[in-house]
Amino acid sequence: MRDLLCELLRTFHANGWISGTGGGICALEAPGRLLLAPTGVHKELVKPEDFFVVDAGTGDVLEAPPDDSLRPSECGDIFRTVIRRREAGAVVHSHALSAVLACDLAGGDELLIERLEMLKGIPGVTNTDKHLVPVVTNTPRERDLTAAVEGVLDDDRFASACAIGVRDHGAYIWGADVWDAKKHTEVYHFLFEATVAREG
Amino acid sequence: MRDLLCELLRTFHANGWISGTGGGICALEAPGRLLLAPTGVHKELVKPEDFFVVDAGTGDVLEAPPDDSLRPSECGDIFRTVIRRREAGAVVHSHALSAVLACDLAGGDELLIERLEMLKGIPGVTNTDKHLVPVVTNTPRERDLTAAVEGVLDDDRFASACAIGVRDHGAYIWGADVWDAKKHTEVYHFLFEATVAREG
Amino acid sequence: MRDLLCELLRTFHANGWISGTGGGICALEAPGRLLLAPTGVHKELVKPEDFFVVDAGTGDVLEAPPDDSLRPSECGDIFRTVIRRREAGAVVHSHALSAVLACDLAGGDELLIERLEMLKGIPGVTNTDKHLVPVVTNTPRERDLTAAVEGVLDDDRFASACAIGVRDHGAYIWGADVWDAKKHTEVYHFLFEATVAREG
Amino acid sequence: MRDLLCELLRTFHANGWISGTGGGICALEAPGRLLLAPTGVHKELVKPEDFFVVDAGTGDVLEAPPDDSLRPSECGDIFRTVIRRREAGAVVHSHALSAVLACDLAGGDELLIERLEMLKGIPGVTNTDKHLVPVVTNTPRERDLTAAVEGVLDDDRFASACAIGVRDHGAYIWGADVWDAKKHTEVYHFLFEATVAREG
Repeated sequence: MRDLLCELLRTFHANGWISGTGGGICALEAPGRLLLAPTGVHKELVKPEDFFVVDAGTGDVLEAPPDDSLRPSECGDIFRTVIRRREAGAVVHSHALSAVLACDLAGGDELLIERLEMLKGIPGVTNTDKHLVPVVTNTPRERDLTAAVEGVLDDDRFASACAIGVRDHGAYIWGADVWDAKKHTEVYHFLFEATVAREG
Repeated sequence: MRDLLCELLRTFHANGWISGTGGGICALEAPGRLLLAPTGVHKELVKPEDFFVVDAGTGDVLEAPPDDSLRPSECGDIFRTVIRRREAGAVVHSHALSAVLACDLAGGDELLIERLEMLKGIPGVTNTDKHLVPVVTNTPRERDLTAAVEGVLDDDRFASACAIGVRDHGAYIWGADVWDAKKHTEVYHFLFEATVAREG
Repeated sequence: MRDLLCELLRTFHANGWISGTGGGICALEAPGRLLLAPTGVHKELVKPEDFFVVDAGTGDVLEAPPDDSLRPSECGDIFRTVIRRREAGAVVHSHALSAVLACDLAGGDELLIERLEMLKGIPGVTNTDKHLVPVVTNTPRERDLTAAVEGVLDDDRFASACAIGVRDHGAYIWGADVWDAKKHTEVYHFLFEATVAREG
Repeated sequence: MRDLLCELLRTFHANGWISGTGGGICALEAPGRLLLAPTGVHKELVKPEDFFVVDAGTGDVLEAPPDDSLRPSECGDIFRTVIRRREAGAVVHSHALSAVLACDLAGGDELLIERLEMLKGIPGVTNTDKHLVPVVTNTPRERDLTAAVEGVLDDDRFASACAIGVRDHGAYIWGADVWDAKKHTEVYHFLFEATVAREG
């Protein structure tokens, strides 16, 4: 699984979704054991041994990587909240420009996505639905986003969403396992790009 | 041929034409024997042994892949209709954003493409033609598109088209064999991009 | 040199400049001996042995490739005209969308490019020049462009240009040798993209 | 370090940031010893032995590459000025279209970048800051930019900037070492693209 996460980081970086050391990824290696990428590093160069293993419940570091200059991703709290509340197995944090521009289009706290076959890539959503993705306001520190993330996860309007947009920042996107999160990451970036292109 | 189909899927995925497990491909391996990609999988990861062999006439599965979790593409009926009605040897199903945006520009059921040298890439079409590509309305289930596809294949306006646009969805693009379908896939994506860029 | 030409074709195809079997390349292998890519094939798959050797003066085929299904590029006459009139060593024929869109912006038969450092990439041109690239009208057959190409090569307004745009079609771009043509191909595509982005 | 610089040049070229032989890179190999890429060559093909070693203080060539057709980058003076004034360890010179278009948007001599999480990628800058990047006017000769570069490095408005835009030309981007410069290069290109997309 660590090899796969590294490969996804390389692909996402090549797509421009996690440039400038931004963005991140996590995945449950086993129940309760969360693999978490380090923060502040060039994500396309992350090696399998660079991941932290943290307790999915408490966030405590269970295993640190051999390179002791590494620190765990600042997204850890948000990642764990999404995993707990959505029974997700993996979460991607994107810094893609299309996510930023899509959030610019959002009215209030919701981004409307509609009239796209690609919506079927989200579980329980079909191409005739008006799909609402929550958009939260960015904060100076990433951990301060956690309360807002919990708020939109409680909101029935967003029950089918597998993504949360962060204004001026990017998006969190998740799935039941790593492959599902990879699929949803591609799906939502397409949906963001299409929505921006149509509204532009 | 299976290796070639896998390579095309990787290339098309890198181009953003079949992301999020969307899109697909099929090709006649021998008269009546249609190689059909599986549905719902990451298309760039499809392996040669993952293809179904179906009867090009009836759609019956003649050979299933070793991985019994795979199911044949939902595009099967449309693929077979195009092959039968256009004597095609291969069909690509694209989920490209440029196809979606080009269909947005279509008046009624036709997309006009003109003033482009690239039109010569379509058999019997020249750069001075007003080339009409049919555009059908998307449906919640892909198999429900078949009747609309048959309708436009009957329509003389679209006799020279090697593509059918599906609004909010993408396009089907075909050729006499795999290489021809690959060529037409590149040609139509260029035509879609150019038409969108000029009208935008 | 044949390996280099094949590598450039692969790179240009990846850039979207010669998709759908369009575009081409030629280069003088020795005085009077012109290597000419075949027509109507997937350019990124051209192999070193697939090139024709033609007489740069007469256009006669001196050596044909082993694969006797191949035919020499239809650009041959234009390529030879440019080589003779500009003492070029290599010519690229691009089908890039940016070239098409830049020609759309041209007033009459000239495209004005200005205020760009990249202009220095053209011999004798500086960033403060108003650089004029000739634009000719497309024709149903590529060989019918030759007269128009000769006309603009005679025109003093275009003395410094190393490119000719073809409306709705693309561009011919040349240099003193293959590396120079590669450089100018990158330079003019940048200039086309910048001009289109600024005017858009 | 030379291998890394060559790899960065290949990546930046693939991104379209240093095409047509434009752009460049330098880095301190040791205190006072500056590795400087050659000028006028295809930057993605630069080999480890092609770098000049120059005195970071005087600009004198300490070691020339074996290939005596190579000449040191014309950016040398600007590179050394940035290194001295900002205690930088590496400087990238980009010819990206996004940098040109962002400079087009600049009012007077400053480009305002704001409301973007990616701003945190610059030391001492946060997402709520109004980040000002200086923009200088292009000159026919690159070395004539040095005085303007010194001027903006003296300007308190730009104390936090790790980039200088050059109108119609591109940008200089630096960091404390090569990895830091690589990070900032990705960060600023994202910031340029986002600012252009929002203003477009």
